[in-house]
Amino acid sequence: MTKQRLEAFSDGVLAIIITIMVLDLKAPLGADLAALRPLAPGFVSYALSFVFIGIYWNNHHHMLQAAERVNGPILWANLHLLFWLSLIPFGTAWMGHHEFSAWPVALYGVMLLFAGIAYYILARLLAAHHGKDSTLAQALGDDRKGKLSIAIYAAAIPLAFVSSALAYALYALVAVMWLYPDRRFEKALSKA
Amino acid sequence: MTKQRLEAFSDGVLAIIITIMVLDLKAPLGADLAALRPLAPGFVSYALSFVFIGIYWNNHHHMLQAAERVNGPILWANLHLLFWLSLIPFGTAWMGHHEFSAWPVALYGVMLLFAGIAYYILARLLAAHHGKDSTLAQALGDDRKGKLSIAIYAAAIPLAFVSSALAYALYALVAVMWLYPDRRFEKALSKA
Amino acid sequence: MTKQRLEAFSDGVLAIIITIMVLDLKAPLGADLAALRPLAPGFVSYALSFVFIGIYWNNHHHMLQAAERVNGPILWANLHLLFWLSLIPFGTAWMGHHEFSAWPVALYGVMLLFAGIAYYILARLLAAHHGKDSTLAQALGDDRKGKLSIAIYAAAIPLAFVSSALAYALYALVAVMWLYPDRRFEKALSKA
Amino acid sequence: MTKQRLEAFSDGVLAIIITIMVLDLKAPLGADLAALRPLAPGFVSYALSFVFIGIYWNNHHHMLQAAERVNGPILWANLHLLFWLSLIPFGTAWMGHHEFSAWPVALYGVMLLFAGIAYYILARLLAAHHGKDSTLAQALGDDRKGKLSIAIYAAAIPLAFVSSALAYALYALVAVMWLYPDRRFEKALSKA
Repeated sequence: MTKQRLEAFSDGVLAIIITIMVLDLKAPLGADLAALRPLAPGFVSYALSFVFIGIYWNNHHHMLQAAERVNGPILWANLHLLFWLSLIPFGTAWMGHHEFSAWPVALYGVMLLFAGIAYYILARLLAAHHGKDSTLAQALGDDRKGKLSIAIYAAAIPLAFVSSALAYALYALVAVMWLYPDRRFEKALSKA
Repeated sequence: MTKQRLEAFSDGVLAIIITIMVLDLKAPLGADLAALRPLAPGFVSYALSFVFIGIYWNNHHHMLQAAERVNGPILWANLHLLFWLSLIPFGTAWMGHHEFSAWPVALYGVMLLFAGIAYYILARLLAAHHGKDSTLAQALGDDRKGKLSIAIYAAAIPLAFVSSALAYALYALVAVMWLYPDRRFEKALSKA
Repeated sequence: MTKQRLEAFSDGVLAIIITIMVLDLKAPLGADLAALRPLAPGFVSYALSFVFIGIYWNNHHHMLQAAERVNGPILWANLHLLFWLSLIPFGTAWMGHHEFSAWPVALYGVMLLFAGIAYYILARLLAAHHGKDSTLAQALGDDRKGKLSIAIYAAAIPLAFVSSALAYALYALVAVMWLYPDRRFEKALSKA
Repeated sequence: MTKQRLEAFSDGVLAIIITIMVLDLKAPLGADLAALRPLAPGFVSYALSFVFIGIYWNNHHHMLQAAERVNGPILWANLHLLFWLSLIPFGTAWMGHHEFSAWPVALYGVMLLFAGIAYYILARLLAAHHGKDSTLAQALGDDRKGKLSIAIYAAAIPLAFVSSALAYALYALVAVMWLYPDRRFEKALSKA
């Protein structure tokens, strides 16, 4: 099976997720700067989620560029990833409305954790489908960055109940870690 | 006529349907775990609908992969299918707000039934357009799974008034039945 | 310039328009059949708008299939068409909330009229760009169906103040007239 | 890396931005012409934003048509542009609800300014990636129109506090300046 529609459908879902989050930023009733201030946590929350969805799109793009074909389980692994990402707007809104209280920040971490695991499963299935000598499997390697992200999320979730600011900083750290798109695929593809 | 835009448009509509359902999960006013509990039925309802739309996208993908061309009636049969699927967010929201009362569960079944019939019509038109010896028609065969799904939906709708949990379980049964994408097309395409 | 992104962007906008209209069908508070009844005009209004957007997508698909290239003015003529169509969800909601009162029905007609004119302009620019001997220009011919639709809309708008049911029936008549996709392009393309 | 998914994702995000703005035009409670009047500023605000997003799509289309490949930083520069554009629906709603008060009009200008800067960065990165003798770099030239737009936005923002109508007129002036798609790329591509 070809990968074009998997890419097109994922692009569609990610484009919608990244855009509908802004619907939660409601235009304030007042018309001055003071009216905007209560929106600040919502805006910060939106910006972080925009970056996370952007990172997923970027990495998805890079990984699928190295893929040559897909199969049924890969389609479902991809939908599984999109399911957890589709909950991000809900988590973003809850976190934005409560200036980063413990539970909303923890739940946001749970969503990131499940999305991270889902991405890892998708990467493993793609690598297995292409064989361990394929460009894709070589580029993925042992996926230390993926495993580290999952570990950081798992640590940050309980920490949210100690300090939600710390948990939040850990999420941001993972984002920074991934801001450079996966050079592995660019390198592997240029060698191939 | 080529099939690319039919695929692209369907991908777009399905991506939006699957994503806007999450807009009905409103961020709760409270900031603790108790505030999340009333959202549980809405979340279960969302997850089931996500799986249903995912199944339709998957099967649509497989069937169209085997198609070579489309015509006017096929475009309309596809829009007819998208119409019933576009109502799923409404049915999902109603069902989620009422912890699976009889009428919302029955209406949800009606939408699934009409979507199932619309998919059956689309499959028949595609098979007829490609001829009965085509890969597509051979792969579809007599479409027992499609017919069985329609029969289960038709049975589940009146059952919703006896036990909405039972009707709901029957919908979930159909979903499980379809979780494996249509191997028929993968097999037929690899032989062709 | 190639036409792919014009098609992709139009598919995206039309897919969103056709799908977000359903957001106006709010899940009712009650959980029985009586609670659904007030939604009936909104549902009828939604179904008609779905058909109209479906027709535009279908005809756009057929016409662009015959097109080989586009230019700057064609991109803007296409955006102009999408602008009027993007107002359809607003018109649909207003009409659906007021059981087809005169003003909402008239405004809906105004939107259809402007969309019809915009489509006509787009068709003319495409024909001019491809030359009068092109498959596209030949298939369009003198576009009697397009002109007739515009005339019916123009007549239906003032009639909405006499009988909104009559105006509504005229809109539905235009929809029926267009339900068969533009055979002209299929014929012209199969000859070419 | 190929540019197809960057184009597809951008088309998706821009299609959603341009369409969800209409969700802020709520169907009025009344059913006569008087009920529509309060929506007039919202409608004007919507129309201007539609034109701005249309211009960005158009120019993005032209520029990417001349591009042959992309890299990681270009993907992020593109996401950066989409981030600022994704805030336009918020700015549009705020401005539309307050009949063009100073702060909302100034904030709208800030969003346009940042989007303009983001587009400029994207153009520079694309030109650098293709080399200064490339069709793309030649077509961009020194990008006087881009620089002038940024200057006008920067001037209009403080002016919003003197006269919001004047600031608004300056935004509209930039729009008019860009209504003709970037002929530079059409010319450069036809020569190449």
